[in-house]
Amino acid sequence: MFDKIYKANISLLTDLYQLTMAYGYFKQDMHEKEAVFHLFFRKNPFHGHYAIACGLELAIDYLKNIHFSGAEIQYLRRLKGSDDNPLLDEAFLELLQNWDFKCNIDAIPEGTAVFANEPILRVQGPLWQAQLLETTLLNIINFSTLIATKAARIVTAAQKDSVLEFGLRRAQGVDGGLTASRAAYIGGVQATSNVLAGQIWGIPVRGTHAHSWVMSFDDEKTAFQQYAHALPNNLTFLVDTYDTLEGVKNAIQTVKNMKTNPNSFGIRLDSGDLATLSIAARKLLDEAGFPNAKIVASNDLDEYAIEKLKKQGAKIDVWGVGTKLVTAYDQPALGGVYKLAALRNEKGDWDYKIKLSEDLIKISNPGILQVRRVFTSDKTIEKDILYDETDYESLPAGSDLLQPIFKQGKLVYDHPTIHELRANTLSNIKALPNAPITLQLDKSLNDKKLQLLNKFKVSKK
Amino acid sequence: MFDKIYKANISLLTDLYQLTMAYGYFKQDMHEKEAVFHLFFRKNPFHGHYAIACGLELAIDYLKNIHFSGAEIQYLRRLKGSDDNPLLDEAFLELLQNWDFKCNIDAIPEGTAVFANEPILRVQGPLWQAQLLETTLLNIINFSTLIATKAARIVTAAQKDSVLEFGLRRAQGVDGGLTASRAAYIGGVQATSNVLAGQIWGIPVRGTHAHSWVMSFDDEKTAFQQYAHALPNNLTFLVDTYDTLEGVKNAIQTVKNMKTNPNSFGIRLDSGDLATLSIAARKLLDEAGFPNAKIVASNDLDEYAIEKLKKQGAKIDVWGVGTKLVTAYDQPALGGVYKLAALRNEKGDWDYKIKLSEDLIKISNPGILQVRRVFTSDKTIEKDILYDETDYESLPAGSDLLQPIFKQGKLVYDHPTIHELRANTLSNIKALPNAPITLQLDKSLNDKKLQLLNKFKVSKK
Repeated sequence: MFDKIYKANISLLTDLYQLTMAYGYFKQDMHEKEAVFHLFFRKNPFHGHYAIACGLELAIDYLKNIHFSGAEIQYLRRLKGSDDNPLLDEAFLELLQNWDFKCNIDAIPEGTAVFANEPILRVQGPLWQAQLLETTLLNIINFSTLIATKAARIVTAAQKDSVLEFGLRRAQGVDGGLTASRAAYIGGVQATSNVLAGQIWGIPVRGTHAHSWVMSFDDEKTAFQQYAHALPNNLTFLVDTYDTLEGVKNAIQTVKNMKTNPNSFGIRLDSGDLATLSIAARKLLDEAGFPNAKIVASNDLDEYAIEKLKKQGAKIDVWGVGTKLVTAYDQPALGGVYKLAALRNEKGDWDYKIKLSEDLIKISNPGILQVRRVFTSDKTIEKDILYDETDYESLPAGSDLLQPIFKQGKLVYDHPTIHELRANTLSNIKALPNAPITLQLDKSLNDKKLQLLNKFKVSKK
Repeated sequence: MFDKIYKANISLLTDLYQLTMAYGYFKQDMHEKEAVFHLFFRKNPFHGHYAIACGLELAIDYLKNIHFSGAEIQYLRRLKGSDDNPLLDEAFLELLQNWDFKCNIDAIPEGTAVFANEPILRVQGPLWQAQLLETTLLNIINFSTLIATKAARIVTAAQKDSVLEFGLRRAQGVDGGLTASRAAYIGGVQATSNVLAGQIWGIPVRGTHAHSWVMSFDDEKTAFQQYAHALPNNLTFLVDTYDTLEGVKNAIQTVKNMKTNPNSFGIRLDSGDLATLSIAARKLLDEAGFPNAKIVASNDLDEYAIEKLKKQGAKIDVWGVGTKLVTAYDQPALGGVYKLAALRNEKGDWDYKIKLSEDLIKISNPGILQVRRVFTSDKTIEKDILYDETDYESLPAGSDLLQPIFKQGKLVYDHPTIHELRANTLSNIKALPNAPITLQLDKSLNDKKLQLLNKFKVSKK
């Protein structure tokens, strides 16, 4: 089955309606009209003030490999409509089979702090192609951005301490785990327990032993001694299988009994009152002459738990976070959307498009949009201005966030390493202002939007 | 990057500590000891009374393809300990490279209703092999079981109506989407929007058009007419781009204007007060002579929203559920665990193992466990009894849930089709009693557990 997933062509990883719409545009001979779509989210996740853009490298991989070959076409040919006739005709299947990617794609680099309603990614190209990309791009960017943001929040709460990602066993599927490990690292965690993520992306991996190791021996002392014998260069003892503080003492005794002093040693707490236990464990370790021994804590941690434990004076050096990070437990989906913003008409001019809604926040912005970021003299983000690249008032100095990724379907972007992306996140977090950023609209854009709203004034949505 | 994921060997999709523990057992020459582990969850998800077991076919695919070849071994060889020496030695890498799967695996078939603390899967075999499987099996079974359960709850709330799964764009990654579509179908939904899931697993796919279709034309009437022209055999009009009830009227007029009567037609509501709008839309459709036209509703639906809308008298025939199903939004992780329950000692006898905890619910059950399900005369589940296959009191008539999947590493299970699994879920839902099931312990098992608890009475955890 994984074989089937792995050998499958993710060009078909889309909602059927993208294909039926592309087909409809083709049948009406309007599929080659030039369109502009923006991918953005309407609300910063986790009741926070920002998100960390993530997933672009995965999106690039998808975009450059799109193809519809024999097996895909065969499958699509078999789809039937309500009258049992084929849903899609042969001419359209041929168009798919001859896929020739022509879109321009601009995107905000991974690891960049972004805010609600800013386009993270912009697609400009033939309407049918731009439409077909929607679901897959949303799937990829939504999830990675969600997890990178969660990681950034957790790393911020941990201050100078290390954060490790331990979530694979509770992640949403195989690639849910892999992608989460990648996004969490870009979001700032220091290492993962996920070996495959280590192999694929070069993320540092960490791990020692579980309760089952301790349970496999007659008692904890024996278990620790045998562990130290087998893995003297990877010594973090999980001390809470039976009694936590007895466990700390057993770990200390084990290290004292070692013939060669280990160059590094730690303990891990995985249950109970982590504040009280870590303070007591720290005391035992210090008194035994191990002031450098690290205390690792895990068990349902997230940014809120870490903040609380720090306030309680917990003596924790390394935070192992799992489920709540890799599933973004308190908000497991980013509501990213992909909206049509302009369509070139027969005269060659742009028709601007907005999606109306009773809810003002849901009204999209028309045009070919770019984000100008303005910094204060101390390199803090001062404001972001949304403007139409083809028509704008004078803009303050700053940098434009969307960068060219594909031009006419050709990749033009040189992707940073995963370690550079992580560094980018950490410096972006430092540049965040204390107060929330409100996205400003350039005057020309604002005028254009008001004009469109006026046109639709009779419509309630 | 997806290429990297797809070509990667998921045998390494595990926590590093599984490898360091396996290595430790190997170094202590106890890796071939026969062990028994159980995979189970401690609490029924979503504050409910049951879960639907799911994911076994994916687990089988993983298990039968485990291998550690050149690239994996190279990667593992490069891992370093704190002293910068290799973490794992060459003899162990050779053991991995010569992986010869020897475990017996028993599992509860997919689509079966299961309850907290029942083993969904049991592994019996060499300690190091059984240990290595933990993370991957948990990842696979946790997620699929979570989503199949959520789907079963939603399908139950929808009563006789159809439920469609639309969640791909907000799913947790590529395979988060694929696996969720599979599990949702097994859990009882009727179709998915996910084309690749359709291709891979033969799940029926559905889809018509989005708001962007309507926005691509000068007005909604033209958009609907052009759609009907292009796709006359796939007519579900999304009516809420501008004004919902005007949209319904435009859809009706479009169908009336068609030269050939379509054999099926529907509308979709995607925003606003779905109860009020569906009642008004039903009236318009009926008055226009379309009593068979289907009303599809979507927008943040789950079992709670569906129940509420039904109470409000909503006239909805088909429920499209997305984000809240595929991410199990209100509980995005199943807390499945994998616990050592027995280890054969040098004398050839079983040493029974329990994981202690201050929390009674967290104390695991020792032995080689099986679940006997007892039915009432009307085929409702009466009770489940947990017992040790090697030592039990007389059991009431019923069926044993765990079935042989692998014997000595060889696959012995003939997997049902996905459609059979879905049917299994639907009949299992019917067999659920109204009151929660409390798992009973066979007397011998209970005695054994008390004896072990007694032995550890001094330990607080």
